[in-house]
Amino acid sequence: MPGRLKRDVAVVGVGMTRFGELWDMSFDELFIEAGLEALEDAGLSGDEIEAIYVGNMSAGRFIDQEHVASLIADRSGMTPVPCTRVEAACASGGLAFRHAVLAVASGLFDVVIAGGVEKMTDVTTEEATSILATASDQEWEAFHGVTFPALYAMMARRHMHEYGTDREELALPPVKNHRNATKNPKAQFRFEITVEQVIESPPIADPLRLLDCSPVSDGAAAVVVCPLDMAKELTDTPVVVKASAQASDAIALHDRETLTGLPATVEASRKAYKAAGIGPEDVDVAEVHDCFSIAEIMAVEDLGFVEKGEAGEAYREGMFEIDGEVAVNPSGGLKAKGHPVGASGVAQVVEIVEQLRGEAGKRQVDGAEIGLTHNVGGSGGTVVVHVFERAD
Amino acid sequence: MPGRLKRDVAVVGVGMTRFGELWDMSFDELFIEAGLEALEDAGLSGDEIEAIYVGNMSAGRFIDQEHVASLIADRSGMTPVPCTRVEAACASGGLAFRHAVLAVASGLFDVVIAGGVEKMTDVTTEEATSILATASDQEWEAFHGVTFPALYAMMARRHMHEYGTDREELALPPVKNHRNATKNPKAQFRFEITVEQVIESPPIADPLRLLDCSPVSDGAAAVVVCPLDMAKELTDTPVVVKASAQASDAIALHDRETLTGLPATVEASRKAYKAAGIGPEDVDVAEVHDCFSIAEIMAVEDLGFVEKGEAGEAYREGMFEIDGEVAVNPSGGLKAKGHPVGASGVAQVVEIVEQLRGEAGKRQVDGAEIGLTHNVGGSGGTVVVHVFERAD
Repeated sequence: MPGRLKRDVAVVGVGMTRFGELWDMSFDELFIEAGLEALEDAGLSGDEIEAIYVGNMSAGRFIDQEHVASLIADRSGMTPVPCTRVEAACASGGLAFRHAVLAVASGLFDVVIAGGVEKMTDVTTEEATSILATASDQEWEAFHGVTFPALYAMMARRHMHEYGTDREELALPPVKNHRNATKNPKAQFRFEITVEQVIESPPIADPLRLLDCSPVSDGAAAVVVCPLDMAKELTDTPVVVKASAQASDAIALHDRETLTGLPATVEASRKAYKAAGIGPEDVDVAEVHDCFSIAEIMAVEDLGFVEKGEAGEAYREGMFEIDGEVAVNPSGGLKAKGHPVGASGVAQVVEIVEQLRGEAGKRQVDGAEIGLTHNVGGSGGTVVVHVFERAD
Repeated sequence: MPGRLKRDVAVVGVGMTRFGELWDMSFDELFIEAGLEALEDAGLSGDEIEAIYVGNMSAGRFIDQEHVASLIADRSGMTPVPCTRVEAACASGGLAFRHAVLAVASGLFDVVIAGGVEKMTDVTTEEATSILATASDQEWEAFHGVTFPALYAMMARRHMHEYGTDREELALPPVKNHRNATKNPKAQFRFEITVEQVIESPPIADPLRLLDCSPVSDGAAAVVVCPLDMAKELTDTPVVVKASAQASDAIALHDRETLTGLPATVEASRKAYKAAGIGPEDVDVAEVHDCFSIAEIMAVEDLGFVEKGEAGEAYREGMFEIDGEVAVNPSGGLKAKGHPVGASGVAQVVEIVEQLRGEAGKRQVDGAEIGLTHNVGGSGGTVVVHVFERAD
């Protein structure tokens, strides 16, 4: 069957830096810290790594450095190992992980590192906004002054119009995610916020306020993958990659079939559920792409956790809390853990692996057996979904 | 055996735009023209394509557009097909091809397009030089004002010092490549040049002159790959990918073990020859990375066509002419065909496939059966080598 991985792949090591404004660390130092932690976690040494995939959105603009895979192979002492950068805006990390998995599944390599990294705070906030806008359609969106908050604001407006989602419901994902982040020592924002604070925070792009938006962050995350057989010898808690799926969509909002969801999320998750032989009701814990509050609301609907338009009510009922029906973003998500754009997709995998191992500390989801990651590029032009299962 | 492809992969379609200053075509139009030509050549329609890989170095800086894989999937009407950008500076195209091959070899997909594209002439030459410098080490090279011609000039100086390579020998690759390009309707420079013209052209970075350097170009190239079994049903002239190899090295010159060659070329070609079960003496035709005259001289040595330091003499004897022992850059190479950086690695594959099919017209290498491509990122931080064979 096309799309079926030829051999089972597992995650055996995870690592990440804390996320935040890390003035004291360079781009390559961030990657190396995360990579070394993942290697140590896997009980492997660098000379056992056969290939590296690097997810990075825009080092070319943030730090004037393209060719970052060569830089990382070099600085980490890993030459002449093949090292490849993949880029799909904020889905770069998810795609790096996917390609590491495929490289192992194909039989070409046994032990591969997937990492993601972004160093965003070396430029001004204005410059960062302009750089992030290169993930949208330059000719039809960015050129005319539309920022990313503005794109998601239009989706929020339409969701409110069509489904009666109200301003208070929109605030519930950030409030939950900040609460979760207080339990994550590596999160950028480890403090709680209230619905009122979200609603009264400075306007960014109506109806979105500052506290609806994920921050500008520095950070890196890395994971080590290998064949499941080998994983069982390395660790008592291997986490199997049950499915890897990727979908594309129109890069510009106006060319989509809907504004109230991301068709690429629907498509990628449909393929992922099918390959994993599960449905959305089987997912215990999910890290979803909450770059804005409305993004998480659309995600839980598009992933099938609730019907379209019903997320607001589900949030009110606590369905996505750590002790809810399906824990969504126990790490704090992009909103509160931080969003170094190229790293986020890999950091999602780090969280899910820790959850399925039962090593997530105060934010542990009880009895988590099946996890999912959902990583979005741009306003939905690329979506990557992975499904994981504890292998006992 | 690790590194061995699990099923045979063949190229069944090739296409490319002409290379040059293409003021009348946008980034996505370039990719689509090449992609459609490749599809038509393969006798396939778009809905048979299961995935797309895009090689691109720096659209983020050349045209303010990251997330180009989504743009291309969108504009070419290919959504929701997975579309992935890979980047390794000027080796981006070679890596896109490699990942398309691996995707098919793994069994995940059957029919995949690999394309490369760069739109470089929307910025000034000064800006282009600055953007290209992001392929070198920003902190230790580019920041201090070192341009790419300057890096290769140091290699040329050292090669002249160690092996007695003289200024006239340095001019021979460009002279040959311009001669070959007169036979290539898609080449940027379709006129001959003389050794005297090279030596007397304006100085760029001593000892390199203007005519030692590849140009700034717009262009795209695309190829369709599929399993060999399927290829045999689609065409009478499938070209098999016998080996795919990639190596990394220090991104900065001063951290390399030598200045007179690229260790990553030696490493990648060693792996490729081994996987293909051939030696350098078996290669009939090669497209090598001649971004500068010295780069081609180092390439023919590092690839093992001649001993280190003996290229100059071999050029004098005509060893690398179309009717020589091994035809090098019959297309005109980066120097004369043009060098849209993200496209070049794929354009090399296009040329080799046309040569092995016997469809290269006036520049046909008689009886070519085994071909090789050699694509370099930066000053040698990434090298990708592929070996091809006609499948009769």
